[in-house]
Amino acid sequence: MKNCIIASTSTLHGGSYLEYLLIHLQQHFAGCQSILFIPYARPGGISHEEYTLKVAKAFAKIDIVVRGIHEFEDARKAIIEAEGIFTGGGNTFLLVSQLYKNEVMQVLSETVKKGTPYLGTSAGSNICGLSMQTTNDMPIVYPPSFQTLSVVPFNLNPHYLDPIEGSTHMGETRETRIKEFHAFNAIPVLGLREGSWLEVKGEMVVLKGNLKARLFLQNQEPVELESGSDLSGLK
Amino acid sequence: MKNCIIASTSTLHGGSYLEYLLIHLQQHFAGCQSILFIPYARPGGISHEEYTLKVAKAFAKIDIVVRGIHEFEDARKAIIEAEGIFTGGGNTFLLVSQLYKNEVMQVLSETVKKGTPYLGTSAGSNICGLSMQTTNDMPIVYPPSFQTLSVVPFNLNPHYLDPIEGSTHMGETRETRIKEFHAFNAIPVLGLREGSWLEVKGEMVVLKGNLKARLFLQNQEPVELESGSDLSGLK
Repeated sequence: MKNCIIASTSTLHGGSYLEYLLIHLQQHFAGCQSILFIPYARPGGISHEEYTLKVAKAFAKIDIVVRGIHEFEDARKAIIEAEGIFTGGGNTFLLVSQLYKNEVMQVLSETVKKGTPYLGTSAGSNICGLSMQTTNDMPIVYPPSFQTLSVVPFNLNPHYLDPIEGSTHMGETRETRIKEFHAFNAIPVLGLREGSWLEVKGEMVVLKGNLKARLFLQNQEPVELESGSDLSGLK
Repeated sequence: MKNCIIASTSTLHGGSYLEYLLIHLQQHFAGCQSILFIPYARPGGISHEEYTLKVAKAFAKIDIVVRGIHEFEDARKAIIEAEGIFTGGGNTFLLVSQLYKNEVMQVLSETVKKGTPYLGTSAGSNICGLSMQTTNDMPIVYPPSFQTLSVVPFNLNPHYLDPIEGSTHMGETRETRIKEFHAFNAIPVLGLREGSWLEVKGEMVVLKGNLKARLFLQNQEPVELESGSDLSGLK
């Protein structure tokens, strides 16, 4: 039975890394003495080691040991045998490229679908959708495919950003970008604002956190969903 | 001899489409009775026809006729025989995919390098660099390659956006994204703010418009370039 937290962001403004989620993670990873961390997205280009150390410090607060996937000789085996798995944020193109390069995209999808507790933040959440095609990131590397884990049967836009009132910038708003996605793709897109997350338990998908989320369906006006909304039927 | 205007944006806040550039375009396309428009980037998902009509209206003000590349049976021939070429903005992934699908990336590069006057705005400027890997756009379609026209020997970031002071949003700033690009690529990146453009005449590349541009070199602190700066040596 699937058991996932799919969060818009790791960090809220003014908070420390994973701080706002820790109380939920304690419950989510209850029974796990250690979790496997996937640092492939390398935010700001930091190394796998640096990134894993940062995550280990946060999880130490709830007495969970963190090991980076790069520390294992057999990445596939590390995923299959993990008590819990966390994929951190950074660059989604890089993350997806590395998952394919190390031949673990498929096994990660299967493992998460079988029920290993999973946490994703930002890029690590983006890959929970059908494809990474609603990422906000720059295409700094060329991945062999945009297809991702399909933990949920729709796409995610983490760090969803409302149009900034009074902005004179002429670059596309997030909403315009998602509309462009829907000119070519029928997949629903959920815009998750920072502080929101999805809780996935088996086939149940529920919006958590204090904020609304914005749902985009092809050829329809976007709608605001209240926290607590059941997204289980969305596909 | 190359002869290009590579502009950050088509439109300034409060202005109409191409308005701020028209006086320069009159000179740039002097002698052209008609130009070829490449509408493949389809901003907001609009059709090739709608987009071409919008461009035709703007160019009518300087007595230049616009024909969309989709109107020609032979897109390659249309490019080779064009008096001038304009590639408009929209989604860079879509633009690049279509240029490859229609097998015109190579011929467009050769034609522009031979001296057919070229205008690019936004996505149409992004493709003037070595690759589209510093676009801001969403990967709504999967292009067969990220390599682009190489009209200039570096990369561009159109609609360059400075960090917004006082923002509480935790998504990456543009500068962070470009830094991530430089963790994996050595190519210089020029952040062109809205209202700036590059004038390319042969091997001379000069920053135009009233604003500074921000230059990012791998492993170096970014620097601000004054309008009028000569970028001919940049590579």
